[in-house]
Amino acid sequence: MSRITVSAFRWVPPFAQGLVRDLRVRWALEEAGLEYDVKLIGPDDQKSAEYRALQPFGQVPAFQQDELALFESCAIVMHIAEQCPALMPTDPAGRARTRSWMLAAINTLEPPITVMTVIDLQPGGPPEGAKDMRAGVLQRIQSRLDSLAAFLGDREHLIDDRFTAADLLTTTVLRMLRTTDLVARMPTLHAYQQRCEARPAFRKALDAQLATFAANKPPGA
Amino acid sequence: MSRITVSAFRWVPPFAQGLVRDLRVRWALEEAGLEYDVKLIGPDDQKSAEYRALQPFGQVPAFQQDELALFESCAIVMHIAEQCPALMPTDPAGRARTRSWMLAAINTLEPPITVMTVIDLQPGGPPEGAKDMRAGVLQRIQSRLDSLAAFLGDREHLIDDRFTAADLLTTTVLRMLRTTDLVARMPTLHAYQQRCEARPAFRKALDAQLATFAANKPPGA
Repeated sequence: MSRITVSAFRWVPPFAQGLVRDLRVRWALEEAGLEYDVKLIGPDDQKSAEYRALQPFGQVPAFQQDELALFESCAIVMHIAEQCPALMPTDPAGRARTRSWMLAAINTLEPPITVMTVIDLQPGGPPEGAKDMRAGVLQRIQSRLDSLAAFLGDREHLIDDRFTAADLLTTTVLRMLRTTDLVARMPTLHAYQQRCEARPAFRKALDAQLATFAANKPPGA
Repeated sequence: MSRITVSAFRWVPPFAQGLVRDLRVRWALEEAGLEYDVKLIGPDDQKSAEYRALQPFGQVPAFQQDELALFESCAIVMHIAEQCPALMPTDPAGRARTRSWMLAAINTLEPPITVMTVIDLQPGGPPEGAKDMRAGVLQRIQSRLDSLAAFLGDREHLIDDRFTAADLLTTTVLRMLRTTDLVARMPTLHAYQQRCEARPAFRKALDAQLATFAANKPPGA
């Protein structure tokens, strides 16, 4: 196999460090034991025609290997996982079940967290007039975390008692709640997240993302 | 192949009719020419242990075929598309590219639309204190629609000049903007959405969802 390139931001503010979505792809590549190059980009690249040809929305990560150009972290992780039994069962039914949980992470757990993040990141903090809305969103997040914890129960992982790409994505979504105690006060989810983040591949991926930000910290930031 | 069952709501309020996510799965099955049974559920079923065993978050749609139980509309559509060349290229690279766009629909286009919907559906309408937030979210939706329109240009479809599951999901996300003129005032996107919705399989899927709601309208609703 030929060399893989993943795009990532040169620098982001501290609130986003360790959450940017190239982390998912780096982690999957580390689990798969695949080496990769990083193409660092900034706001100007995000708007450039050259980068848009690779990633139509100007986001990270974009993935390149030979003629294949992919985008969307979940789609890239699926692509890597299909070539790597360490990340996904190899039978079609097992793959389809793994994808159900991958999608639950990013399309059921993540959306209410996104809404709360938008509210909380308003300049000056959550607007007074958005208090009831925030309370409703928080309730929705809690109800989805409850469903996840109920499913996990005594399970160590989501699929077939083994780590898969579904745990990888779910962990990166739980990490978005790090400024809250929502996960910390649910023993099942807290232990699950800790278990997944203890994997050497996760540490390597996270360290690589953070090292880039440390090396490219703008003056005064 | 044995019989497929898809879960759907018995009834939802008008603002959600034609948008509930079983529409995606019904549409994919119609494109694939696969017959299916519908398992209608209501709020009580959503909380039942029996239904949660099928769909851990109590949502619709859930998909069953023999021993295989799947959830998350995007994951189910992927599963159907992999068995149906009418919905997806058959080579691995073409499939991975199609999945990039499927994920862009539900994880790049949809999230800011979800935030706006949450704001707009607050009791009494968008809170006064959330005005700036809504303006910011609207800008983000517009920027993503611009990126989609720029990519489409003169293309009729997202992948290889043919209809795929990526167009299917993107269309269902554009439909979420039906109470706004955001799509209508962008000729490229408007024509694209009309083109996809003109497909007989879409009409059949939509009619089936709406017929159920009409037949199960609660007294006084």
